[in-house]
Amino acid sequence: MTANNNTLFQKRVSIEQVEESNELAPKFDKDGLISCITTDATSGEVLMLGYMNSEALEKTIATGEAHYFSRSRQVLWHKGATSGLVQNIVEMRIDDDQDAVWIRVKVAGNGASCHVGYRSCFYRKVPVGNRNENAPGQMDEQICLEFTEHEKTFNPLAVYGDVPNPTQL
Amino acid sequence: MTANNNTLFQKRVSIEQVEESNELAPKFDKDGLISCITTDATSGEVLMLGYMNSEALEKTIATGEAHYFSRSRQVLWHKGATSGLVQNIVEMRIDDDQDAVWIRVKVAGNGASCHVGYRSCFYRKVPVGNRNENAPGQMDEQICLEFTEHEKTFNPLAVYGDVPNPTQL
Repeated sequence: MTANNNTLFQKRVSIEQVEESNELAPKFDKDGLISCITTDATSGEVLMLGYMNSEALEKTIATGEAHYFSRSRQVLWHKGATSGLVQNIVEMRIDDDQDAVWIRVKVAGNGASCHVGYRSCFYRKVPVGNRNENAPGQMDEQICLEFTEHEKTFNPLAVYGDVPNPTQL
Repeated sequence: MTANNNTLFQKRVSIEQVEESNELAPKFDKDGLISCITTDATSGEVLMLGYMNSEALEKTIATGEAHYFSRSRQVLWHKGATSGLVQNIVEMRIDDDQDAVWIRVKVAGNGASCHVGYRSCFYRKVPVGNRNENAPGQMDEQICLEFTEHEKTFNPLAVYGDVPNPTQL
């Protein structure tokens, strides 16, 4: 073991250690973040893609509740602290090069995870494979997204009030 | 519609357009990339987290086969071109602020997606919620990852030969 005094995480020393060992040696990017895919433990649906800094990953592991780092607000974000929609971890996995985690969660309250009010952040479908036969690899027509959820699970204004919208153009 | 001459994508003009409309207006980060979560269409398992540049996203949409941008090699990457493990898209979704896509795929060949030889890149479990009762939020012991796949689906050396390992320390 290659201990790191500050955290639970090991220092990254070799590709073999990172890919093939049982040591947790996460790679944080140049902004200090690791990606986190969050899925519903029951339905398997992808709810959101979030980001964790070292502190958020440690707190998630220690408490069993999802903590993220908010890129728009630049603060540690205990998911559900405002909305009540806490995400309880059923399982956490990490990928081959340890620069991404996947958490399977049960969401408290009404089960929503998206600030727009939908259950999943991925509430729109992108049509694919609509080949143009005269020009393979080109699309025939303008892409039109299709909504997969038609009712919002909650009213964002009632839950978040005048907290600034995290979406950035 | 706010047409962009170069691509299938719309220019991002408002939060309402990005979150609530049927226009595809993806947000590429400062490296020109958008995140892509790839899950197995049948089992729901997360196979990998990849990245697409504008060209990769267009080709994925037009052909129905997953294309990524390889950050380690800095090239467009038609997944399966070397290994035969092509990912056929069953469904593509995009998230609220349009900076991430989720693709549900059927993988050709032996069904593997991970360069280490496993089916999923997320082949190790991170234990969570092991609270220290004397210091809530702190862990009791060293974290030890647990393998969820015990046999490799293919031999990476036989498939990739001496292509450099994409994992970076």
